[in-house]
Amino acid sequence: MKTVYDAAAIAAMDKDFRTQFINHLSGYKSANVIGTVSELGLGGSNLAIFSSVVHLGANPALVGMISRPFAENVSRHTYNNLTSTGYYTINHVATNWVDKAHQTSARYDLEVSEFDAVGLTEEYVNDFPAPFVKESYIKMGVKYLQTVDIELNGTKLIIGEIVLVVVPTGCVSIDGHLDLVGAKTAAVAGLDTYHKGEMLGRFAYAKK
Amino acid sequence: MKTVYDAAAIAAMDKDFRTQFINHLSGYKSANVIGTVSELGLGGSNLAIFSSVVHLGANPALVGMISRPFAENVSRHTYNNLTSTGYYTINHVATNWVDKAHQTSARYDLEVSEFDAVGLTEEYVNDFPAPFVKESYIKMGVKYLQTVDIELNGTKLIIGEIVLVVVPTGCVSIDGHLDLVGAKTAAVAGLDTYHKGEMLGRFAYAKK
Repeated sequence: MKTVYDAAAIAAMDKDFRTQFINHLSGYKSANVIGTVSELGLGGSNLAIFSSVVHLGANPALVGMISRPFAENVSRHTYNNLTSTGYYTINHVATNWVDKAHQTSARYDLEVSEFDAVGLTEEYVNDFPAPFVKESYIKMGVKYLQTVDIELNGTKLIIGEIVLVVVPTGCVSIDGHLDLVGAKTAAVAGLDTYHKGEMLGRFAYAKK
Repeated sequence: MKTVYDAAAIAAMDKDFRTQFINHLSGYKSANVIGTVSELGLGGSNLAIFSSVVHLGANPALVGMISRPFAENVSRHTYNNLTSTGYYTINHVATNWVDKAHQTSARYDLEVSEFDAVGLTEEYVNDFPAPFVKESYIKMGVKYLQTVDIELNGTKLIIGEIVLVVVPTGCVSIDGHLDLVGAKTAAVAGLDTYHKGEMLGRFAYAKK
């Protein structure tokens, strides 16, 4: 049996119901935690979960993520840090610590490092100036490029260039495919529900 | 063992390797097919897979998707249709027809309906003016609102408002959670690899 919700039904939904419901409609979302440090070391490191990281292009290697309006959450710490220092890390949430990743969404004060608060480990790779998550298997260092304001609802599309990538050697195939199942990458549905993946199949480049 | 790729290593990658590799780095991606019709019935219906549909906000219910530069693929058919008619559908790809969804990425001529070419069924719901995919379990009708040009690489962020939702009745919980596993929603990794999900856990709103 199917249920159809029209625009009036969507508008009439209880606020919390609608937030959860609409948030599921895009399908599975990427689960990443964003690592930053504050400028001049004030406030130390920061780690925040984002479920909106999206591939924008391979050459240059551009990645985007959506930041909610700052009045609604604590993502301003992440935004202030990455725009002032110019760098951030994107770390795949792994299936064995989805609880810790979710806990980074709590409203910790600026002085608190979410790494310490949730029990994840800061890791520095080469001379990249933002902290990676040691417990993450696929992670990248990103150079901040641009913010695109989405005036329709006050969100921001934050765009950066991937300049450093760390992956398990055995997860990279000869043609550039990454084994997300092997790397324990998690996916998220809605606001709070985490999943692991199981591969169904891989298909050739489609021709008519 | 880990492999670290710096900016020089990324730049030196074979083009096809890099396209596949970078495309995996955002993590699991949503798998949706976009249904449109051409204005005045010229060219009929169109169906195209997008792996970049992203939640933008719940109230108003906004959803975005990234369109590659038109020179590179056939997404201009979708874009021309949704901007000229003002409406499109977003249909979750289900795990039992990921092959058909992938095949919509072939460069069919404008006159060819991908519904017919790949073997999926057009479905019209209420008086919504774009075709849904009958075989999809979670799907939405979207009113086109705005295109945001991303000048860094020529992509476009297409934004619309969700005005109609069709879901299996049994997949909606009392608090708005949708059971994506029960609805057979698929996820995609990179350009061509499809996955099903298995739920790990759901967590309460995080407090410090």
